[in-house]
Amino acid sequence: MADKQIICPDADQVLGQFIEGLDVETSHHRMIQQENKCGYGLSGVCCRLCSNGPCRISPARPKGVCGADADTIAVRNFLRSVAAGSGCYIHVVENAARQLKKAAKDRVPLKGIPALDRLCRLLGVSGFSDWDKASKVSDAVLADLRRPVDEKMELVEKVAYPLRTEAWKKTGLMPGGAKDEIFNALVKTSTNLNSDPVDMLLQCLRLGISTGVYGLVLTNLINDVLMGEGEIGFEPVGLRVVDPDCVNIMITGHQHAFFGDLQEYLSSEEVKSLAAAQGAKGVKIVGCTCVGQDFQLRKAAGSDAFCGHAGNNYTSEAVLATGCIDLVLSEFNCTIPGIEPICEELGIPQICLDDVAKKANAEYMSYSYEDRQQISRAVAEKALESFGRRKISMPGDVQKLFVQLSDALGKMAAGSQEARALESVLAEAAAKQDWGTRKNPLAAHGYGNAITGVTEVTLKKFLGGSYGPLIDLIKAGKIKGIAGVVGCSNLRAKGHDVFTVELTKELIKKDILVLSAGCTCGGLENCGLMSPEAAALAGDNLREVCESLEIPPVLNFGPCLAIGRMELVAGEIAKDLGIDIPQLPIVISAPQWLEEQALADGAFALALGFTVHLGLAPFVTGSLVALSVLTEKMPEITGGRLMVDTDVSSSAEALEAVILEKRQSLGL
Amino acid sequence: MADKQIICPDADQVLGQFIEGLDVETSHHRMIQQENKCGYGLSGVCCRLCSNGPCRISPARPKGVCGADADTIAVRNFLRSVAAGSGCYIHVVENAARQLKKAAKDRVPLKGIPALDRLCRLLGVSGFSDWDKASKVSDAVLADLRRPVDEKMELVEKVAYPLRTEAWKKTGLMPGGAKDEIFNALVKTSTNLNSDPVDMLLQCLRLGISTGVYGLVLTNLINDVLMGEGEIGFEPVGLRVVDPDCVNIMITGHQHAFFGDLQEYLSSEEVKSLAAAQGAKGVKIVGCTCVGQDFQLRKAAGSDAFCGHAGNNYTSEAVLATGCIDLVLSEFNCTIPGIEPICEELGIPQICLDDVAKKANAEYMSYSYEDRQQISRAVAEKALESFGRRKISMPGDVQKLFVQLSDALGKMAAGSQEARALESVLAEAAAKQDWGTRKNPLAAHGYGNAITGVTEVTLKKFLGGSYGPLIDLIKAGKIKGIAGVVGCSNLRAKGHDVFTVELTKELIKKDILVLSAGCTCGGLENCGLMSPEAAALAGDNLREVCESLEIPPVLNFGPCLAIGRMELVAGEIAKDLGIDIPQLPIVISAPQWLEEQALADGAFALALGFTVHLGLAPFVTGSLVALSVLTEKMPEITGGRLMVDTDVSSSAEALEAVILEKRQSLGL
Repeated sequence: MADKQIICPDADQVLGQFIEGLDVETSHHRMIQQENKCGYGLSGVCCRLCSNGPCRISPARPKGVCGADADTIAVRNFLRSVAAGSGCYIHVVENAARQLKKAAKDRVPLKGIPALDRLCRLLGVSGFSDWDKASKVSDAVLADLRRPVDEKMELVEKVAYPLRTEAWKKTGLMPGGAKDEIFNALVKTSTNLNSDPVDMLLQCLRLGISTGVYGLVLTNLINDVLMGEGEIGFEPVGLRVVDPDCVNIMITGHQHAFFGDLQEYLSSEEVKSLAAAQGAKGVKIVGCTCVGQDFQLRKAAGSDAFCGHAGNNYTSEAVLATGCIDLVLSEFNCTIPGIEPICEELGIPQICLDDVAKKANAEYMSYSYEDRQQISRAVAEKALESFGRRKISMPGDVQKLFVQLSDALGKMAAGSQEARALESVLAEAAAKQDWGTRKNPLAAHGYGNAITGVTEVTLKKFLGGSYGPLIDLIKAGKIKGIAGVVGCSNLRAKGHDVFTVELTKELIKKDILVLSAGCTCGGLENCGLMSPEAAALAGDNLREVCESLEIPPVLNFGPCLAIGRMELVAGEIAKDLGIDIPQLPIVISAPQWLEEQALADGAFALALGFTVHLGLAPFVTGSLVALSVLTEKMPEITGGRLMVDTDVSSSAEALEAVILEKRQSLGL
Repeated sequence: MADKQIICPDADQVLGQFIEGLDVETSHHRMIQQENKCGYGLSGVCCRLCSNGPCRISPARPKGVCGADADTIAVRNFLRSVAAGSGCYIHVVENAARQLKKAAKDRVPLKGIPALDRLCRLLGVSGFSDWDKASKVSDAVLADLRRPVDEKMELVEKVAYPLRTEAWKKTGLMPGGAKDEIFNALVKTSTNLNSDPVDMLLQCLRLGISTGVYGLVLTNLINDVLMGEGEIGFEPVGLRVVDPDCVNIMITGHQHAFFGDLQEYLSSEEVKSLAAAQGAKGVKIVGCTCVGQDFQLRKAAGSDAFCGHAGNNYTSEAVLATGCIDLVLSEFNCTIPGIEPICEELGIPQICLDDVAKKANAEYMSYSYEDRQQISRAVAEKALESFGRRKISMPGDVQKLFVQLSDALGKMAAGSQEARALESVLAEAAAKQDWGTRKNPLAAHGYGNAITGVTEVTLKKFLGGSYGPLIDLIKAGKIKGIAGVVGCSNLRAKGHDVFTVELTKELIKKDILVLSAGCTCGGLENCGLMSPEAAALAGDNLREVCESLEIPPVLNFGPCLAIGRMELVAGEIAKDLGIDIPQLPIVISAPQWLEEQALADGAFALALGFTVHLGLAPFVTGSLVALSVLTEKMPEITGGRLMVDTDVSSSAEALEAVILEKRQSLGL
């Protein structure tokens, strides 16, 4: 391991050094063990659907036993992954809509009434009260999600940019019921069913549209109603947010609305006294992965129980390894299995709220709106108990000795000479070994003032109520164009957050404004690129803009779900310019895409007509049909195009070239 | 290839010889090319869900990058496959129920009124007319399939054996809405979501129950209403059913109800004259794969357009290679991609009726109940056109010469010496090369009198209205027990149909009555085991029974869907004996399981409490947790147990041992 760089010092020096020094194994370590990759798997030409397999395609063996060729096999695998990724987002939006429905039925106060009004206008919903409106919004979303595949969903035309829905209708891409589209894709990719790669690639686009409109746009808009809206602000980010003297609940997942009650409860006087009784300053939620970004985004609307966002998916093991976490509370991905042995070793309990994301050694508390208060109480209780154990955390035999000595001390006359002597021995030993004290070894990690709370609403408001000023800056060449740098972090594209951070630096140097949503934000904010002083890294033009507006050159939209918000922004700009989305000088990059969800996101971006860059090829390169459709024919189908480039500089140049080409077409 | 045996002569000598002699490539040939298998894939420990992968687990690398171990990876892959397999069956039952609903709405005659009445009694449905009843049955099924996952399906308790639903409730296995269960399984198996292998294995069982009750039981009962009921009879089977002088439409799939209109139309005087005008004896449907078994089962209720069942999945390429097929009409699996190049080469058009099973070079005619007549006409027209081309099928250059000579002949005076001379040259050439004549090179394939039409209803009726006589034979030891030999055929477990046929021979020799459903039937009937004279191969006791009743020792329930019928039979026997299903001296074997659907079937059988034998291990053996749950802990969970044995004799012995053990427990 010593000769391997497992994290880029530039990207996140402090975290990297901490991880290198750990006893516990993390994903960063396992990436090195798993660096020899299977070529069949990488190119997608391995099929293990039936018992005649697994079959692997090579020039000498161009077909599987059933006759499926590289195209059918690779695209079938790919579609199944896109379907699973879409399923993840549809699961999340369905749960959000169901939460909204129940909150409306219970007549609980909704935190985002202006958001509700905007959402009602967007969807053409009216009602006699806010709750009635919320209930109808929820019904409309749920009805669409559960339609049969042969009924088109009704909200697509209301949410998506009109020129896009026109284009989608022409190419037969308007999706039927989102859940059925996913279901059919799963069936389609089973043994001896579909063997038409083009049909399957078009299905990927259809899934992209339903993923985008429902999972990426509507989830946020519903959560804005339930959990409150974002407000632009500046916040500390990274491991520094963890106060070792608090009871710390690390959260992972994507379903912000599951935490509404918990955040209220943790801020209550009841919990504050319980914490004080344990010698803790309070009970805090430590953000990790996208749901942490969602908390951060809505910090202004939330409670003081959220202490800040620590980091993205591959930060989570390090967060636990600090020894400052008392409980892991998860409700979805990206909850990596690697946290399980660390929790086991450190005695950190885990609670899962949704069985789709159940961890092996976690307790499962099935979240339901009805049981939310009971769950909040149980979570707090577990965390407090665990904190009680953390206070005296030390090796077992030493702990026993300490308990015996403490017992002995208790029996001595207080203030006696013997007692004072023993007290001083115990204090000295504890101080030497850090026993009995609590310390955050990563208190230097992260950054002090990342921009947060950027949404399609707050950005417009910041610009004075219209995108005009931004458009003027683009027209004037002060901002060359916009890049959405989005998605996950992975460990294969240069290292944790490395491609994302380095590409972003190159883009801003070229006067391209960067918007980010997803685990990319976790990396970019922790490395300081979302702070105003990062303007110094931008090209002269963009730097001037950022300095005059006192904004960073990289804007933080929060969770991956908020990719949908960025696409609303693009729609508004296109509308103001009177053009279609593929004409905009806007590009998308998912430099470190990781998950099946990212593939569904990418399919949405392609359907919207964006040029989409990936820093690693998806596992479909064994199919010439897939390569041709995604990289060559896509412009005719949707106006979009896939671009895979594993080099940072040439990726930045290629993205700039696309922006310049679009500018030229617009006469800019 | 010469040194490889690609089909067992015993199992199907005629077909094997034909395939060995073919110019075109078939699955049998590709099996040899693909015989080197990936060990990671075989044991299920390869993960390609995320871009940090693919990861492969070995002792040196016990975890993937994310921390997923062999258990999580293998079981996640397995659950995703079971979910896809379940999805296939649920797709089929949903389509069947939708067909029934529309037929009822249109007030078209229903072919199985007694079946409707039984179904209504089973489901507790009543109505003021048959159509009203049918509509309500359909509504009840569709409502269940589309319920949210947190609402239990209502018909499970009505259809399944009561002691089973009791057991399932205790273990939390009662399924919510079938489509949502599948959807959630897909989400569960995505990146960084579920990592609890036991939770995922229990989900497999839940999926097995919804697959079984809806896909395997209710599909048949609905199709009995729509398409008519089976009647026990004896029919020729195998390639011999193909008459080269007919227009032949080969069908593949699983959705019998899609063919209701077509079979009527093809029997019409209109089509008969169109065929005659082309010089054909008629337009015939050639059964292939399970939908062919469904036609065969309901032959008595069908039309004369069905010429018989040719064979199972890996027979289909040979059926085409006979050169006697004019059109392939498919609507689901098992439509293997290997048929595409053969169709291409022989100029056989393909039509797909369901986009989930779209083939690359096929025409897609989206089947809908409303368009059924139009589709029937289009299908017949295409087939007739294609037959026109088949008549003069010969190599291109020779064909041109023939056309020129025929033209020349047309210009000569009829009966003139020159004309007569040319005619005789042409006739001689044609006869020599088989040009201009039509021949079925597999007219010797198959068997003359396979039993057909066995269902839970016809079997009981045959036994005199109750299972009493069968139970008495079991009690008396004349029949030692029953084995359901079911599922697919594959090419890896000894060869096409080999394990199935050889195991069945051993079982009947041990006086075990065999019931079969699925592609297994295709093999068993073509090899003569479903004909009365096969009694000679049975043990003395079973032979005596078969001879006295004039039945074969292997009974043909038809398509894989009819596994559900066999499980109704088991339920009735258990009820008569007053015991639960796991106590019955009945075992299940899927010796040559192939597809993801078979895994879902298997999960149902395990949930029912059967001992289930597989002739090949599913790709989950890399997980010790899976092995332990499936083979050791399953008896505590459901009473069932998985048994993998790749040897025919020891499998037969192990299955007999289970039967003997169950008999002993019952005091028999």
